[in-house]
Amino acid sequence: MRRLVKRMSRKAGLAPGTLIHVGEKKVEKVRISLFDYDESSFEEKEVVHIEECFPFKDKPTVTWINIDGLHQSEIIEKIGKHFDLHPLILEDILNTGQRPKIEDFENYIFVVLKMIYFDGETEETRIEHVSLILGGNFVISFQERVGDVFNPIRERLRKGKGRIRKAGADYLTYTLIDAIVDSYYSILERVGEKVESLEDVVVANPTPTSLQTIHNLKREMIFLRRSVWPLREVISGLGRGESSLVQEATGIYLRDVYDHTIQVIDTIETFRDMLSGMHDTYLSSISNRMNEIMKVLTIFAAIFIPLTFIAGIYGMNFSYMPELGWHWGYFAVWGVILIVGISMLLYFRRKRWL
Amino acid sequence: MRRLVKRMSRKAGLAPGTLIHVGEKKVEKVRISLFDYDESSFEEKEVVHIEECFPFKDKPTVTWINIDGLHQSEIIEKIGKHFDLHPLILEDILNTGQRPKIEDFENYIFVVLKMIYFDGETEETRIEHVSLILGGNFVISFQERVGDVFNPIRERLRKGKGRIRKAGADYLTYTLIDAIVDSYYSILERVGEKVESLEDVVVANPTPTSLQTIHNLKREMIFLRRSVWPLREVISGLGRGESSLVQEATGIYLRDVYDHTIQVIDTIETFRDMLSGMHDTYLSSISNRMNEIMKVLTIFAAIFIPLTFIAGIYGMNFSYMPELGWHWGYFAVWGVILIVGISMLLYFRRKRWL
Amino acid sequence: MRRLVKRMSRKAGLAPGTLIHVGEKKVEKVRISLFDYDESSFEEKEVVHIEECFPFKDKPTVTWINIDGLHQSEIIEKIGKHFDLHPLILEDILNTGQRPKIEDFENYIFVVLKMIYFDGETEETRIEHVSLILGGNFVISFQERVGDVFNPIRERLRKGKGRIRKAGADYLTYTLIDAIVDSYYSILERVGEKVESLEDVVVANPTPTSLQTIHNLKREMIFLRRSVWPLREVISGLGRGESSLVQEATGIYLRDVYDHTIQVIDTIETFRDMLSGMHDTYLSSISNRMNEIMKVLTIFAAIFIPLTFIAGIYGMNFSYMPELGWHWGYFAVWGVILIVGISMLLYFRRKRWL
Amino acid sequence: MRRLVKRMSRKAGLAPGTLIHVGEKKVEKVRISLFDYDESSFEEKEVVHIEECFPFKDKPTVTWINIDGLHQSEIIEKIGKHFDLHPLILEDILNTGQRPKIEDFENYIFVVLKMIYFDGETEETRIEHVSLILGGNFVISFQERVGDVFNPIRERLRKGKGRIRKAGADYLTYTLIDAIVDSYYSILERVGEKVESLEDVVVANPTPTSLQTIHNLKREMIFLRRSVWPLREVISGLGRGESSLVQEATGIYLRDVYDHTIQVIDTIETFRDMLSGMHDTYLSSISNRMNEIMKVLTIFAAIFIPLTFIAGIYGMNFSYMPELGWHWGYFAVWGVILIVGISMLLYFRRKRWL
Amino acid sequence: MRRLVKRMSRKAGLAPGTLIHVGEKKVEKVRISLFDYDESSFEEKEVVHIEECFPFKDKPTVTWINIDGLHQSEIIEKIGKHFDLHPLILEDILNTGQRPKIEDFENYIFVVLKMIYFDGETEETRIEHVSLILGGNFVISFQERVGDVFNPIRERLRKGKGRIRKAGADYLTYTLIDAIVDSYYSILERVGEKVESLEDVVVANPTPTSLQTIHNLKREMIFLRRSVWPLREVISGLGRGESSLVQEATGIYLRDVYDHTIQVIDTIETFRDMLSGMHDTYLSSISNRMNEIMKVLTIFAAIFIPLTFIAGIYGMNFSYMPELGWHWGYFAVWGVILIVGISMLLYFRRKRWL
Repeated sequence: MRRLVKRMSRKAGLAPGTLIHVGEKKVEKVRISLFDYDESSFEEKEVVHIEECFPFKDKPTVTWINIDGLHQSEIIEKIGKHFDLHPLILEDILNTGQRPKIEDFENYIFVVLKMIYFDGETEETRIEHVSLILGGNFVISFQERVGDVFNPIRERLRKGKGRIRKAGADYLTYTLIDAIVDSYYSILERVGEKVESLEDVVVANPTPTSLQTIHNLKREMIFLRRSVWPLREVISGLGRGESSLVQEATGIYLRDVYDHTIQVIDTIETFRDMLSGMHDTYLSSISNRMNEIMKVLTIFAAIFIPLTFIAGIYGMNFSYMPELGWHWGYFAVWGVILIVGISMLLYFRRKRWL
Repeated sequence: MRRLVKRMSRKAGLAPGTLIHVGEKKVEKVRISLFDYDESSFEEKEVVHIEECFPFKDKPTVTWINIDGLHQSEIIEKIGKHFDLHPLILEDILNTGQRPKIEDFENYIFVVLKMIYFDGETEETRIEHVSLILGGNFVISFQERVGDVFNPIRERLRKGKGRIRKAGADYLTYTLIDAIVDSYYSILERVGEKVESLEDVVVANPTPTSLQTIHNLKREMIFLRRSVWPLREVISGLGRGESSLVQEATGIYLRDVYDHTIQVIDTIETFRDMLSGMHDTYLSSISNRMNEIMKVLTIFAAIFIPLTFIAGIYGMNFSYMPELGWHWGYFAVWGVILIVGISMLLYFRRKRWL
Repeated sequence: MRRLVKRMSRKAGLAPGTLIHVGEKKVEKVRISLFDYDESSFEEKEVVHIEECFPFKDKPTVTWINIDGLHQSEIIEKIGKHFDLHPLILEDILNTGQRPKIEDFENYIFVVLKMIYFDGETEETRIEHVSLILGGNFVISFQERVGDVFNPIRERLRKGKGRIRKAGADYLTYTLIDAIVDSYYSILERVGEKVESLEDVVVANPTPTSLQTIHNLKREMIFLRRSVWPLREVISGLGRGESSLVQEATGIYLRDVYDHTIQVIDTIETFRDMLSGMHDTYLSSISNRMNEIMKVLTIFAAIFIPLTFIAGIYGMNFSYMPELGWHWGYFAVWGVILIVGISMLLYFRRKRWL
Repeated sequence: MRRLVKRMSRKAGLAPGTLIHVGEKKVEKVRISLFDYDESSFEEKEVVHIEECFPFKDKPTVTWINIDGLHQSEIIEKIGKHFDLHPLILEDILNTGQRPKIEDFENYIFVVLKMIYFDGETEETRIEHVSLILGGNFVISFQERVGDVFNPIRERLRKGKGRIRKAGADYLTYTLIDAIVDSYYSILERVGEKVESLEDVVVANPTPTSLQTIHNLKREMIFLRRSVWPLREVISGLGRGESSLVQEATGIYLRDVYDHTIQVIDTIETFRDMLSGMHDTYLSSISNRMNEIMKVLTIFAAIFIPLTFIAGIYGMNFSYMPELGWHWGYFAVWGVILIVGISMLLYFRRKRWL
Repeated sequence: MRRLVKRMSRKAGLAPGTLIHVGEKKVEKVRISLFDYDESSFEEKEVVHIEECFPFKDKPTVTWINIDGLHQSEIIEKIGKHFDLHPLILEDILNTGQRPKIEDFENYIFVVLKMIYFDGETEETRIEHVSLILGGNFVISFQERVGDVFNPIRERLRKGKGRIRKAGADYLTYTLIDAIVDSYYSILERVGEKVESLEDVVVANPTPTSLQTIHNLKREMIFLRRSVWPLREVISGLGRGESSLVQEATGIYLRDVYDHTIQVIDTIETFRDMLSGMHDTYLSSISNRMNEIMKVLTIFAAIFIPLTFIAGIYGMNFSYMPELGWHWGYFAVWGVILIVGISMLLYFRRKRWL
């Protein structure tokens, strides 16, 4: 989060449209892949120089250019020039701190999304910046690193199964967004498992560590929510049917992915509520434990302190203490001690402390 | 809840419209029942093959097909083909994680609802996924298991009492929704009883168990709320009179069931408020109890510690301690002890600790 | 509140419009009273059979039929038939769990309100269900029991003072609503007094009972709020001037009663805020008291435990303890004890514990 | 606040428009003052009988009638008759419990405001009810008591400086509202000072009194907020330019005072946030203090209890206790005591309790 | 904050439009600088008398007049006269308590913003009042002190790089706003670092100081939020394209800076959430520590108090105590003591207190 803010300040003072990659370099080499298809034809190739993609722009087939890696701003610049994109768009593609948004130009629609994935190495949830440009017959997608979220789509394109090869660039955009939203579910599932297992721990044996975990999950929810919330507007913006680039038939699909987004938000809110409840449970169980400790202390103290006092009395060295001379005095004292002790115990039992 | 998320991730990567039942199989065999009626005629039959229902589509009478069990996706698929339903609709019918929604196509309206019932075996409130398709003269309803919520409607259809046989498919849809909303009341009643009995317990004798019950009920409220809240939009969407499939005369009935939904939400909110209040009461009574314990400890300690000190003094073995030789020394010490003890007691009484 | 939910579930499964009184029977016999008036004429009578009221419907004068007691559904049914009311309206009249609402038909407007009164016997605030039907020249009002809230209006009708006899049925409806809203003030006043007196108690001498009272008042506020909040919409719905049954001149009066409703809601919110503040004060003062107790305990323990230790030392029976033989040894120990004790006291004073 | 509610209930049951002054009588004698001016002429007089003001109504000059004191309802009644005001307006003028509102009639606009001033005698913030009636060429203002908030306006009128004499009655209304909103700043300034000085106290040396002050200020903020919040709507209602009584040129001035209102609300919210923060700080510092006390107790107890035990051991009177006979036994015990004591101290230091 | 309120009350009672500088004098001498440019020409000069700027108004080139220092109200007055500005605008320029707003006149647009900078000397975040006036071909900017936020813009103007010299006054206004919004990032970055380092401290070793820091940061967030929140409306007001002074092409740039504002608000909200979470962590860790202390106390007390009692018993001086005569009595007592002590330890271990 500090990172996020830092990135932005690095740019302060520059002219708008200046292309600087704000973010970490997540991949060694930029990978460019190209898919060109219609119902009957299909072409897929790995591209070395971005210029190889440009001829496809004028073909009537649907072209999908996918760029993994943002640190070579000259590639973005060339794409910008060839596809006639606004400089601010290019800036937003490179600015990984940009929140999800949609920007509707006449010739193309620009969409910023956040992809979420679990980094197995660092055991952290990571947020990745994804930008999509939807033109009349092309889609350009920008990712920070090589990911596998889009692989099923590639597979479907190759096999030509379903609607995907018959439909246009807008449908491809939908499938890309759908894949990203679907990827949220696996993160939520992972969080859900953690939440559930945590719940048992907090009730049974709460430790400061479990509190820390609750706080970490809570914070993760804050970040997730921040990434997903603006998606609603983005998708409903796409589906509103104001742009000629999105066909009416795609509307129902976009409404479907919109539904999924709402569901994700709903689940995040539910998790937040559950985590708050667990925090309360934790605090109550800590306070119960304190109570327990206090009870033990009080019972011990209240029973033995008077008894010790009695013993102390007969430890005094007065020359004239008649009880000391009595033959059964010692046993009488034991009697008193037992009576006092037992009546204390009964008192505490009546108070339900035992 | 974990379940809910899991289900969804199982589908990630598949083409939209792929029919996979996401959810548990809640019934052994899919049961299909058919009602066909108008004001004068009435036919009811249990159907083995879904194809037997299809001829009724073209009859002017109102047809109600009810399917209990979602795990045989081929049945759903056949219905989809015959009634010309959008693939995403079929997907939503099978996806039990789908939240309540309404989707208005020109020829039919698709409604997703959540039915809530109390599972006597596991002592848990369960949420069931119900989908309705309202066409010109037919209603198709999908449930996860054989339930008895719709039985009174079946009875009314058989007896031909009231408005139901005279009215169209839209009125039948209303009665189905009404039956589902009515079923919420019995759950809320059960919760209400628990809340009320809990209230007495929390005030009289709060235990960690009662806290746990509060938290469980709170969480149940979160889930109920999540199921009921979107219903408002669904029902107001139906009643808005934009579709030609819903007659104007049905509007007032839909407004009525809308009112009931609001009432359910209201009651849920009230329960939440009451549970929050009970949580506070619990915490305060725990803290009161701690106070009580501390008081007892302090009173015992503060009275006996000085007395024990006095006894300790005269237990010392100095060769020259004049008091020890006094004849009434021992009794004088008892006098001092009594004076100190009683003045401590008076002090604590003045502090209202006794 | 449990009652509220229970009532509703009793109806589940019945056809809509089935007339069942959901609620307790609050009055032995249904009382029907009739007022018929215009500027010059005035007639008042107690009616035994509801049919006696029906001829007044066709007279140009304003007719007010007031029914106290809802348990004889056949009366409601007859009214429904004669005045051509929708079955759902009749159902809502009998359903005391219905929240405030307005339903605008062409020939009449149906209004549900909640009257609040303090039951002196049970010392509880009770909510009563009131329904009003405003037709062209008649008003029918339904109450659960014989109340005295409408008495001043009856008096004004009899005396013919003010605008009331000159104005139409809509103005009468306004005065009835106004009387109900005015009745809220006396409840709020009672609550206000409780809140104020509680405030002094909580600051001066908080007990668990005062906490309980805070919680009860808080809950009462939740219920009041729930009854009053929808009133806003009801009254603004009436005053919006969409119905020809409400004359424009009545608009300003409805705005006035709307203002009062807002004021009631405002006051309820203020009470809630104050009660929350008092809850906080209570908790802080409990925690202050705990602090006090801890201080006393600590002071006693910290002073006497070292002293007892010193006494214990010289109570040991070692054969060679040089101090024991010293002539002034005993007094020297007293000196040490005083020095230690006084320095402890000074230490605590410096810590501001004394 | 109790007062507020009480006032209202006094009126319950009366016909709307009945003129009863609800509120305390804050001034002995009603004072009526009149200003009549245009750009060139100016007349000011103190009026004994309200009738003296009436001829000014028909003059083209702007007339400002200011009435201080509301308890003589016959004056209000006469004004109502002469200026043809709606009875409900007159009622609202007298009802000091009325919240800020605007009522737009064709011939005049009625505005209710709340003036806030600090009562030096009782050291309390008081809320005063102010009503304004803006007609074509007159403004009538009603206050509960003689105040000095409007004095600068009177001065400006006398001197004829600025825009005020050139502009119409609407501008005069604006200046009156502006003066009232400006008066809020001095109250907020006073509160701000208290908040700031409190902040230092809470951090340095929190006492239950400082908590009480926090709660009082919080409650004051609740009341202030309630008075100021509806002002927004009132002023934006005036400035919306729907009435012909408010000239377009006055719009920018009304927007300016609207800005000030927002600023006042903002400041109140900020104070509330700060007070909540201070409440948290208070609680934390109380809990820190408790911790401190516990530490002291624990250190004393944990060090001396074992030592006292050791001393107790050698105070036993067994006939055969070898250590007692040792020559250096006593000193050895001292050695053990020192070792135990010092190691306890080291242990607590390691735990950072010392 | 106190300052803020104070300033305003100083003005109470004055006619609107009276020019008084409300705020501290932050700079010795007012500095006026002028930039006049179009695509081909460029002129920059430091101005002594504001009158020197006036001839530029009628030139077709874009003129930017920047005034640093607000305490010489006669300069503002002269500008107001020459550029025909509304007196209230001039008032707002001088009133540093004014919140961000936009005021659209026909000939010019007036914008109030808040610049935020970190004062290295006092280690405080400071808020500065900035006003902009956008006319057809001029921009006038007012700052409280000489700052360096606008320096990069000056540099870009001098070098003629990018779009800035080609575009009009509206684009210049955009760059000024953009520079201000960008400056927020460096403050947020600084806060972010503090928050992050604090987080580690709170988990590892919370002290009352860290709580104080949390509270200070929380309060800072309240103030930041208050400054930034209204910016949203200001910028969207500019970009809405209702004024002819803002060209359509500038719209996308304004949307971009709007996005940044949202991002700033988002980050502030995230910080607030994180700080709340840290506050909770702090409280829990304090309460954990209390628990720890209590445990230590209880363990010591519960082990040694019974043992001391046993020792006390055999310190009694009864003449007949058989055990005292036993040869192994003393060692038997040690045995008992060890058994009791060890069983207590085992008991506490089983309770997981050790």
